[in-house]
Amino acid sequence: MGFISNILKSRSPEDGDFFLKLKDVLGYTPKNKSLYLKAFTHRSMNLRDKKGNSINYERLEFVGDAMLGAVIASHLFSEVPQGDEGYLTKMRSKVVSREHLNELGKDLGLIDLVISRIPKSNFGNNIHGNLFESLVGAIYLDKGFKTCERFIYNNVINPYVDIEKLEGKVISYKSLLIEWCQKEKNSFDYDVYEDTGKDELKHFSVKLSINEKVVSKARATSKKKAEEKASKRAFFAFQKQMTKLI
Amino acid sequence: MGFISNILKSRSPEDGDFFLKLKDVLGYTPKNKSLYLKAFTHRSMNLRDKKGNSINYERLEFVGDAMLGAVIASHLFSEVPQGDEGYLTKMRSKVVSREHLNELGKDLGLIDLVISRIPKSNFGNNIHGNLFESLVGAIYLDKGFKTCERFIYNNVINPYVDIEKLEGKVISYKSLLIEWCQKEKNSFDYDVYEDTGKDELKHFSVKLSINEKVVSKARATSKKKAEEKASKRAFFAFQKQMTKLI
Repeated sequence: MGFISNILKSRSPEDGDFFLKLKDVLGYTPKNKSLYLKAFTHRSMNLRDKKGNSINYERLEFVGDAMLGAVIASHLFSEVPQGDEGYLTKMRSKVVSREHLNELGKDLGLIDLVISRIPKSNFGNNIHGNLFESLVGAIYLDKGFKTCERFIYNNVINPYVDIEKLEGKVISYKSLLIEWCQKEKNSFDYDVYEDTGKDELKHFSVKLSINEKVVSKARATSKKKAEEKASKRAFFAFQKQMTKLI
Repeated sequence: MGFISNILKSRSPEDGDFFLKLKDVLGYTPKNKSLYLKAFTHRSMNLRDKKGNSINYERLEFVGDAMLGAVIASHLFSEVPQGDEGYLTKMRSKVVSREHLNELGKDLGLIDLVISRIPKSNFGNNIHGNLFESLVGAIYLDKGFKTCERFIYNNVINPYVDIEKLEGKVISYKSLLIEWCQKEKNSFDYDVYEDTGKDELKHFSVKLSINEKVVSKARATSKKKAEEKASKRAFFAFQKQMTKLI
């Protein structure tokens, strides 16, 4: 395909990096590579195919948005049996809010993959969520529904969507964990360190220990987020004991 | 499950009919029957499960709506390569408009399956579309994405979604067919007859002949619709010749 070879020509030194980093995000090797290149191509590149149709990530956002909507609808249907149609709709819009999608895209460092004539620093915050949606669209078109669903579970539902928090029962897993540790007389420690690795954005890792045993780890773009993620993972490990506090 | 047995008890004489008619609509035998009973249960039945959660089709509508959105998004992405995100969004909302969904539900005769305390004649027009959405939700939850996608292709996309019509190029397939026949000096005949069968709603069937040979058949709730459906089927059979007229 002309588009791929053009892209490869124009950015060949970094191209290996693109698919290496992408594979890291996806957890598998892409089949139709041109779809993923498209998913990260900004309109400023002004690319067109032979028929004159624009090549950029915007059409893939449309597909990704629809897939996110479908997978999350079906998850909420099963997980919130007491919620009526209006309630489920409200919960879904929290999960796929612009703000949340931006956060997801940022945590995955998707902006490091963008193909653009505009310097990365000039993009607004929405670029992160837009790339996240277009990536979801590319995954669906490349690998089908099951893989796309798994990606959404791994990157949206499992780490971020929890009914307690969405229903406002839990505001912060860190506070809940501290409260529980104090009540049960457990010692706890958040060991936070900078762990930017190859990402352009600063990242932090944290190890959470309870009674001097590491119980969970997490990595995110701020200390606070990494601690909250690790606390949530610990919450699921000790769910039975901790839910008594909610 | 208590719900099924209650329903079976309360409507046992007609129950065989329910699943017979349903199988006809689905083209397969349902696995989780309670999902389909739920998909046709109106809130007027005031049913609740053991935990006190309402049993009616409204939550399934939420899932069906999302599945329709996803399958149609991906179809339009492939079929309309020249359309940008905004254009695809607009086209999709035409396909899943309330009016169109009502028409789809009506053509399948879904209201004949409704389980309700309210007489069928008291429902407004939206009941048809609501039942169509909830049925799509039940299909997804019972049989997974592939079957649900196939149902949407067979019942929404193949018979009704065509890019020419959505883009306003074709207003009526019947006019187009007549124009073509006159130009090519072909004789044509729409043989329409009432064909209500077991449905409560009046239905019409039509056989369309060109040069005294039947080229397509269709069935719908009005003469006009049946003729349009048959004309569209003929259009696809003679597409190469007829598209010259568009």
